[in-house]
Amino acid sequence: MNDFVFHIPTKMYFGKDCLGKLNAELKSFGRKVLIVYGGGSVIRTGLLDRIKDLLGDDFEVFEHGGIEPNPKIGSIRRGADKCKEEGIEIILAVGGGSVIDASKAIAAGACVDFDPWEFYGGPRRAIEKALPLFTIVTMASTGSEMTCGAVISNDETCEKLGRGGFPVFPKASFLDPELTYSVPRFQTACGAADILSHVMESYFKKDLDFCLLDRMMEGVMKAVVANAEKVLAEPDNYEARGNLLWAASWAINGLFGGGSRQVWSCHPIEHELSARYDMTHGLGLAIIIPKWMRYCMDAEPETRARFREFGENVFGVTDECAAVDSVEKFLYETLGLASSLKAAGIEEIDAADMAEAICRKNNINGYLTLDKLAVQKILEACR
Amino acid sequence: MNDFVFHIPTKMYFGKDCLGKLNAELKSFGRKVLIVYGGGSVIRTGLLDRIKDLLGDDFEVFEHGGIEPNPKIGSIRRGADKCKEEGIEIILAVGGGSVIDASKAIAAGACVDFDPWEFYGGPRRAIEKALPLFTIVTMASTGSEMTCGAVISNDETCEKLGRGGFPVFPKASFLDPELTYSVPRFQTACGAADILSHVMESYFKKDLDFCLLDRMMEGVMKAVVANAEKVLAEPDNYEARGNLLWAASWAINGLFGGGSRQVWSCHPIEHELSARYDMTHGLGLAIIIPKWMRYCMDAEPETRARFREFGENVFGVTDECAAVDSVEKFLYETLGLASSLKAAGIEEIDAADMAEAICRKNNINGYLTLDKLAVQKILEACR
Repeated sequence: MNDFVFHIPTKMYFGKDCLGKLNAELKSFGRKVLIVYGGGSVIRTGLLDRIKDLLGDDFEVFEHGGIEPNPKIGSIRRGADKCKEEGIEIILAVGGGSVIDASKAIAAGACVDFDPWEFYGGPRRAIEKALPLFTIVTMASTGSEMTCGAVISNDETCEKLGRGGFPVFPKASFLDPELTYSVPRFQTACGAADILSHVMESYFKKDLDFCLLDRMMEGVMKAVVANAEKVLAEPDNYEARGNLLWAASWAINGLFGGGSRQVWSCHPIEHELSARYDMTHGLGLAIIIPKWMRYCMDAEPETRARFREFGENVFGVTDECAAVDSVEKFLYETLGLASSLKAAGIEEIDAADMAEAICRKNNINGYLTLDKLAVQKILEACR
Repeated sequence: MNDFVFHIPTKMYFGKDCLGKLNAELKSFGRKVLIVYGGGSVIRTGLLDRIKDLLGDDFEVFEHGGIEPNPKIGSIRRGADKCKEEGIEIILAVGGGSVIDASKAIAAGACVDFDPWEFYGGPRRAIEKALPLFTIVTMASTGSEMTCGAVISNDETCEKLGRGGFPVFPKASFLDPELTYSVPRFQTACGAADILSHVMESYFKKDLDFCLLDRMMEGVMKAVVANAEKVLAEPDNYEARGNLLWAASWAINGLFGGGSRQVWSCHPIEHELSARYDMTHGLGLAIIIPKWMRYCMDAEPETRARFREFGENVFGVTDECAAVDSVEKFLYETLGLASSLKAAGIEEIDAADMAEAICRKNNINGYLTLDKLAVQKILEACR
């Protein structure tokens, strides 16, 4: 049991009327607001207009749309430049994890003279200052609304890198389950896979001395499995959407890390997939997770006890193979996601080259330490 | 599923080396520190001296000891006066829930010209300002280190009343499991009963639409049961103490309320017990809880399904009577607490008069709405 600090300054507003507090929350931070959004669904659903109405005459509103699903440094550079040119005082992210991550990078980039990529790659400069950030979440997935981390992609260097900093914690985040009704089936499924994966990355660890967190994580995973199924059957089910949305925030806000020094396993592998093939993050994870589970159990039989515990306490099955089967059933049948890269439209990969790149960028001292050969084997099983 | 806000600004330091950050955290808030503590165990264990060493020459330290187990308004008045006289800038609570609650009241009382009891009784004034508060937790129990609430007793009016206010959220709380090694067996047991009760008060609710929180609460309760037993067998077990300590913070920090409009049931009944008989809060709860469970099941058979779910998911038993039996076994055998008022040394109570007082001060629209007669019946079963 290692020492840790838990500190989330973000004010989390949850519920169908929560946007009613938006105007009042932003007011004390300034007048000039940059609304950051993605491909335009917030325009189609009318959400952008609704937000502008809520802000009313109290604010001067600027827009920065077109944030990509794996947000690219170009969009961040343009957003940060706009902030400097217009004297933006507040960033308001409206969207899912990609939009929120991009907004964090823009909020930090607006306060420095250097290229914002230098936070992520190269010198990896510290984020010491940022414009105040607010988020309106439209999708249950990355939990970025309750963290100070962001993952940004760079086309030129073919990198997808994460970076955190206290100043980019949102001041407040607004979670209205109704705003997630319009998320398409595939994106909802990818979001659920992402949430499950976030909890699993913390759950599978070597030091089993924090059973409080284990039991809480099992509870979250059970709820994700149950509510993802409900949401796919009934996209307008408020309770199911709400459970999934709040689960997303808790899956990754640091509580479940609990001082663990261990790094994640499936995420660094997936980041290479989405960097190379622009694959949706949750889909990439869904393909990888069961292959990683089987790799662990084969490579290190001692891991079987933990997979058994996971199976028992999350899926009510009694052996570790059934645990993997249950995860596959959830990801590929309930969520209906592709079970292989081929099924996801990626015909061939150079597993050795990818493994080389992954291990160059990451030191995967995860549940098992994964070297190049291990990563290559997992990727080959994903084909 | 109701709207809610989740916002905990407190920085939670956890672990055996966390006090190393104390000096740095306090420094930006001033020089004059009032250390508030209880009956003197912090002197006997050497903790007070250790804290003074850690603060060193950077601070001018004042002391306010002798806070009672159910903190009394007299101690708060004296503490607030001392703050005003000495120009105290920072309050540092060192102790369990009573000391932390008292410190919140002192921190708020130091900033007003009126009697601090007016926050709790009478006009129930809002807490709009407070001196910055820090806490060093020496006992797993009330979770006060992660909330903005406090319960204060008034001998003259025979009242024990709670009050919260954002300004009294601790700036930072320090949780070192080793500091709880010296908590005596009885106090440890009472703390565990208190933690379990906090979760149960949120778990038993009419609206069963937030299964995410249900599953998380079941996880916390399982961990409390398992670790309380370990801690009593091995008081120096770091992991078990750590699990219990972190569970205490989460049991009551608002996460599990999840927008529920429902009030608690066993706590208002217990507050009358400890106000009249100065009974340890956790012991009072331990006596009441199973009687309240049986009352609910008898008065409203529809509640049985939830008690069954609780039994299954926390204790692994399959019917609701076994669920109550399991709770009794935990409280009275594992924790070794008294199962009745008589066994706790209270020979006779005026149940009707107590019920009258409880229902005058509280509107118990809890899991079941409890009127005077209901409260009287529960109290009679506690004899």
